[in-house]
Amino acid sequence: MAKTMRALCKVRPEPGFELTEVPVPQIGPTGVLIRIEKAGICGTDYHIYAWDQWAQARVRPPCIIGHEFMGRVEAVGEAVRGVRVGDRVSGEGHIADLTCLLCRTGQAHICERLKIIGVDRDGAFAEYIAMPEYNVWRLDPAIPDDVAAVFDPLGNAVHTVMAAGVSTRSVVITGVGSIGLMAIPVARAAGAATVFAIDVNQAKLDLAKRLGADRTFLATQAGIVDEIRALTNGDGVDVLLEMSGSGAAIDSGLQMVRNGGTAALLGIPSDNVNLNLAERIIFKGLTVLGVNGRLMFETWYQTQALVKSGRVDLRSIITHTLPFEEFAEAFELMRTGAAAKIVLDVAGAR
Amino acid sequence: MAKTMRALCKVRPEPGFELTEVPVPQIGPTGVLIRIEKAGICGTDYHIYAWDQWAQARVRPPCIIGHEFMGRVEAVGEAVRGVRVGDRVSGEGHIADLTCLLCRTGQAHICERLKIIGVDRDGAFAEYIAMPEYNVWRLDPAIPDDVAAVFDPLGNAVHTVMAAGVSTRSVVITGVGSIGLMAIPVARAAGAATVFAIDVNQAKLDLAKRLGADRTFLATQAGIVDEIRALTNGDGVDVLLEMSGSGAAIDSGLQMVRNGGTAALLGIPSDNVNLNLAERIIFKGLTVLGVNGRLMFETWYQTQALVKSGRVDLRSIITHTLPFEEFAEAFELMRTGAAAKIVLDVAGAR
Amino acid sequence: MAKTMRALCKVRPEPGFELTEVPVPQIGPTGVLIRIEKAGICGTDYHIYAWDQWAQARVRPPCIIGHEFMGRVEAVGEAVRGVRVGDRVSGEGHIADLTCLLCRTGQAHICERLKIIGVDRDGAFAEYIAMPEYNVWRLDPAIPDDVAAVFDPLGNAVHTVMAAGVSTRSVVITGVGSIGLMAIPVARAAGAATVFAIDVNQAKLDLAKRLGADRTFLATQAGIVDEIRALTNGDGVDVLLEMSGSGAAIDSGLQMVRNGGTAALLGIPSDNVNLNLAERIIFKGLTVLGVNGRLMFETWYQTQALVKSGRVDLRSIITHTLPFEEFAEAFELMRTGAAAKIVLDVAGAR
Amino acid sequence: MAKTMRALCKVRPEPGFELTEVPVPQIGPTGVLIRIEKAGICGTDYHIYAWDQWAQARVRPPCIIGHEFMGRVEAVGEAVRGVRVGDRVSGEGHIADLTCLLCRTGQAHICERLKIIGVDRDGAFAEYIAMPEYNVWRLDPAIPDDVAAVFDPLGNAVHTVMAAGVSTRSVVITGVGSIGLMAIPVARAAGAATVFAIDVNQAKLDLAKRLGADRTFLATQAGIVDEIRALTNGDGVDVLLEMSGSGAAIDSGLQMVRNGGTAALLGIPSDNVNLNLAERIIFKGLTVLGVNGRLMFETWYQTQALVKSGRVDLRSIITHTLPFEEFAEAFELMRTGAAAKIVLDVAGAR
Repeated sequence: MAKTMRALCKVRPEPGFELTEVPVPQIGPTGVLIRIEKAGICGTDYHIYAWDQWAQARVRPPCIIGHEFMGRVEAVGEAVRGVRVGDRVSGEGHIADLTCLLCRTGQAHICERLKIIGVDRDGAFAEYIAMPEYNVWRLDPAIPDDVAAVFDPLGNAVHTVMAAGVSTRSVVITGVGSIGLMAIPVARAAGAATVFAIDVNQAKLDLAKRLGADRTFLATQAGIVDEIRALTNGDGVDVLLEMSGSGAAIDSGLQMVRNGGTAALLGIPSDNVNLNLAERIIFKGLTVLGVNGRLMFETWYQTQALVKSGRVDLRSIITHTLPFEEFAEAFELMRTGAAAKIVLDVAGAR
Repeated sequence: MAKTMRALCKVRPEPGFELTEVPVPQIGPTGVLIRIEKAGICGTDYHIYAWDQWAQARVRPPCIIGHEFMGRVEAVGEAVRGVRVGDRVSGEGHIADLTCLLCRTGQAHICERLKIIGVDRDGAFAEYIAMPEYNVWRLDPAIPDDVAAVFDPLGNAVHTVMAAGVSTRSVVITGVGSIGLMAIPVARAAGAATVFAIDVNQAKLDLAKRLGADRTFLATQAGIVDEIRALTNGDGVDVLLEMSGSGAAIDSGLQMVRNGGTAALLGIPSDNVNLNLAERIIFKGLTVLGVNGRLMFETWYQTQALVKSGRVDLRSIITHTLPFEEFAEAFELMRTGAAAKIVLDVAGAR
Repeated sequence: MAKTMRALCKVRPEPGFELTEVPVPQIGPTGVLIRIEKAGICGTDYHIYAWDQWAQARVRPPCIIGHEFMGRVEAVGEAVRGVRVGDRVSGEGHIADLTCLLCRTGQAHICERLKIIGVDRDGAFAEYIAMPEYNVWRLDPAIPDDVAAVFDPLGNAVHTVMAAGVSTRSVVITGVGSIGLMAIPVARAAGAATVFAIDVNQAKLDLAKRLGADRTFLATQAGIVDEIRALTNGDGVDVLLEMSGSGAAIDSGLQMVRNGGTAALLGIPSDNVNLNLAERIIFKGLTVLGVNGRLMFETWYQTQALVKSGRVDLRSIITHTLPFEEFAEAFELMRTGAAAKIVLDVAGAR
Repeated sequence: MAKTMRALCKVRPEPGFELTEVPVPQIGPTGVLIRIEKAGICGTDYHIYAWDQWAQARVRPPCIIGHEFMGRVEAVGEAVRGVRVGDRVSGEGHIADLTCLLCRTGQAHICERLKIIGVDRDGAFAEYIAMPEYNVWRLDPAIPDDVAAVFDPLGNAVHTVMAAGVSTRSVVITGVGSIGLMAIPVARAAGAATVFAIDVNQAKLDLAKRLGADRTFLATQAGIVDEIRALTNGDGVDVLLEMSGSGAAIDSGLQMVRNGGTAALLGIPSDNVNLNLAERIIFKGLTVLGVNGRLMFETWYQTQALVKSGRVDLRSIITHTLPFEEFAEAFELMRTGAAAKIVLDVAGAR
């Protein structure tokens, strides 16, 4: 086996990435080495590419980027029991300490000492990645490669939908970037009776409609709160899935939820949000859920069940597949908003 | 308004019903008088018709039969606020005392002093029925009359499915009589990833398949438990919906559920059931739910949402619609098992 | 029976109340007339007394004030079934429409058309009050009069504690006004392993300590977040019960909660609150619950169980009992903060 | 370090145990070697001692017995991160595969491939035991040695109580063997408003009373169901904690639970149980929970919180502490029922 590999790195604290030759990572007794085949590009990767304020504060170059992937197990440590060489796998990118209260009570995804691959430690835009066995997910043969490569963001959508609980309920999704788009078929498959989608981008809304949204609204349009109330017998929706991170969307989204309803917040606001907590949350008796990552591994099983049953189909969301070498073009597509989801073909490289 | 009306009565403690002329019921300040348009026939009605052991122990003739219906409000008491003359309605047939612990904490459907229409007090196979305002359900215009007439059993299916929680999960339904059949589209609409159905009647299983069951099994077939485990990665299903009331089905159904899974019991065994509680429930860490009636009125809202969204369609389950006068033919169809669900057209009578 | 009665009224849109003679209220078929014996004074009453901005926007004089009370049933409407003349009762002051989605699904306490007694309609600082039967709570003989008179705020404490779920968990209460103080014995009785209390008033904290708080903190003290984390093995508390309505307390309270924990918000901020939603709620995977009123009537049963079992004792919280006529002195005690909870003796009046 | 150690073994398939010299167990990269200090004796150990039908079917001699213990870490494998040599620990005796659906979704305690120490693999009545790091529980310094030695059965009690949910509720415990006794202070600390206890042994009931049971009933007494209903306002208790495994107790216990209540079954019936499922579970809308083992490790954290806060005190339940060598006397005390809980002092041996 080769000792070096190609990897997309943030080499220096400045915009851009470089495709460089780096050592293949080592594994210990509980580690698994995975040969990457396909990898998805996330908005987070673009933040690191553009080297914005968040990235500057969080990422410590040099670092291999990328956290959405699928591939094949190349090697396993001596204490590994549940994964074998050759297994087709994806992986949970939240590496938890597995020893704290949270990790020991089913909440490893929000472990306080979490390291995220491609952000806090080396990532998946490379020929190989090393991970603890705990984080490796063996793929069902029924899951297509492209979908497997984006199980991470699809898992975000599933986690949010399942945390809120949508069965027989009406749902509004604020923000239909790639995860918001995925949330549409996920919510329908998980039992939502009605799905509304709101965004600032009409093209994304058109795609939302094709993916099963009952009604879509351009965020700049006046009177959406009233219209959504009118569409829900005057009550408001049962569930808000907030996937934009926009303070204005959070505020108006909370207004759309009926008293006693549920709001699941996945989008990350870049600034503080000014809220009328009394009117938006307290008097309404709302349940507001902060959602982060994916439950290990309940969300993964749920995601698999939804894809395997044919009830969630991402083909229209994965708009582009590009060779690893064309990463610059991929990030340009991200910048312009022309792509919904881009997958890099890493295995075909070299 | 006429002072008498036609009603299908159990006149004497013996098999059969009679279409008799009886007084139109009176209402008090909180009562609602409903002119029946359509009414569904339930297995319970057949038990009373046939005057079996259960019926002899429970029903006190003379009594008007029937508890599934839809119609129009004819009159309301002076204290009625939420219902108006002319409203198109169905009704919850479980008349609770509304003053006890259960009624005051959202569990009126299992009030200890429950009276069921058509069983413990006069029912819906008549031109009029009187009910407390509390029990009247105003129908959304999008609900077809036939479906509205069977909201009661459909509600049983919805209550069972929602109590168990099927979103993203695998489900086995034991017993596909009319409620078991309804549970198939309900479970799929509520988010089930996979639905298996088991019954002794191949024709019902064929209908189950058309309604969306992924796989069906004749109950007499050998090795079903093993086969279902094989179809669920060796684990067993997440959820059992028991709708047969058969002791053997309960026992084998519990075997099909994975450790940590959920079993919702709706079917009523006529005798005691002999169970290996240690192996079937305790070691497995199962959650077993007794299900009765419908939540007032959470289940009704859920049922409405499922039908209104077009996600549950009962057209293939309502196999027969007959004029009120042909009730004898209807009960003969019930006896032979030739019908799935029969609706009586009461409004067209006279 | 007399046709007029004495009542404490907000007569004109200006500060102060007047003890005036007004007609005894009438009841309809589902109404109950209650002769008030004791009534508790709430911070809300003081807001109306002082005629602050909130009161000016909400209250429409002339209006009888007061919403915490106990008394005896004087008369019942013809359709009343569950309450009899002479019954010793308290009452739920949230008068809901009982016909909407929320009322029909166990959430009448947040009905959108809610009228609160003593705020939106005539209240309990009077010799008589009229209420729908639905809102009347029959008192267990084991509940002392003084405690029965403050079941409303005690119910707020119970609702908040039970919504959060404190069994075996560590809890911080921010704000120990009268409801925050009540929440201490309630949380301990409901199973909290540890209770911390924070307030700006040292005298209230001393009382909190006597009521069972394990540790108390003056809100102005530096480093409370770190200290509470240190006391909880570095994790933070499992549960925040926010009872101050202070934006600063909400912000620091959320910091004290561990990842994956629960924050129940009962205190009403008078202004918008500026929050780092990403750090305080989303990344932490928090569950934030808006809490309003009391569940009808699950909270009332829980409150009764806690008091009746002797596990919650409010004697040290009810610091003053005054005759009805001395209401001005009572509101002066409210103003200075010298009282925790004041009960007015209405029956002894005249 | 010594290469051999003393251990209490089931040497041959016949009644009795022998204190024999066996090799000290080896550990792999993820293993932990623990020097046992104290160990609790369980009813299961007595079944193996007596070599009853269950033991003959399950246990494969030669095997070291015992699954309740505390001690100090003697050595750790190279991949162990969360435990250090010298740590004071107890351990979860359910050794799961950690790779299956159940293990990956927070239900390792009911993994289908579970091996229980002292039953399916070598146990804790020995100078040393080897365990995977995953199963080791680091003890808080505030937990006394004796209590730490019985965290396993105490955890059964906590798991059952917390699964049922007792906060503000009324509870009946059927069967007050050592776990049933522990469940009394646990239920009270976890928030139960009222606790009733039923058993065939008056001495155990007397101890139950001292531990905080509000009322106790000799199981042979007539009319207990009616009496318990009378004590609960005619409704029945909210919660049954079944800890006897007796079919008759299960049947009458289910009768005592109110409609809509919860029954948690921990006791293991040795035979099938004949139940009127319709009357006992289905019409009542009961939730029946099979309970097995302890949640890894939510139950352990809850148990620790209850003991550490001083809210659960087991001193009156641990009736005997004996030197390791006097095991025969200990099992004789078990046989006669003279002991509630016995702890063996293993460290003092040799």
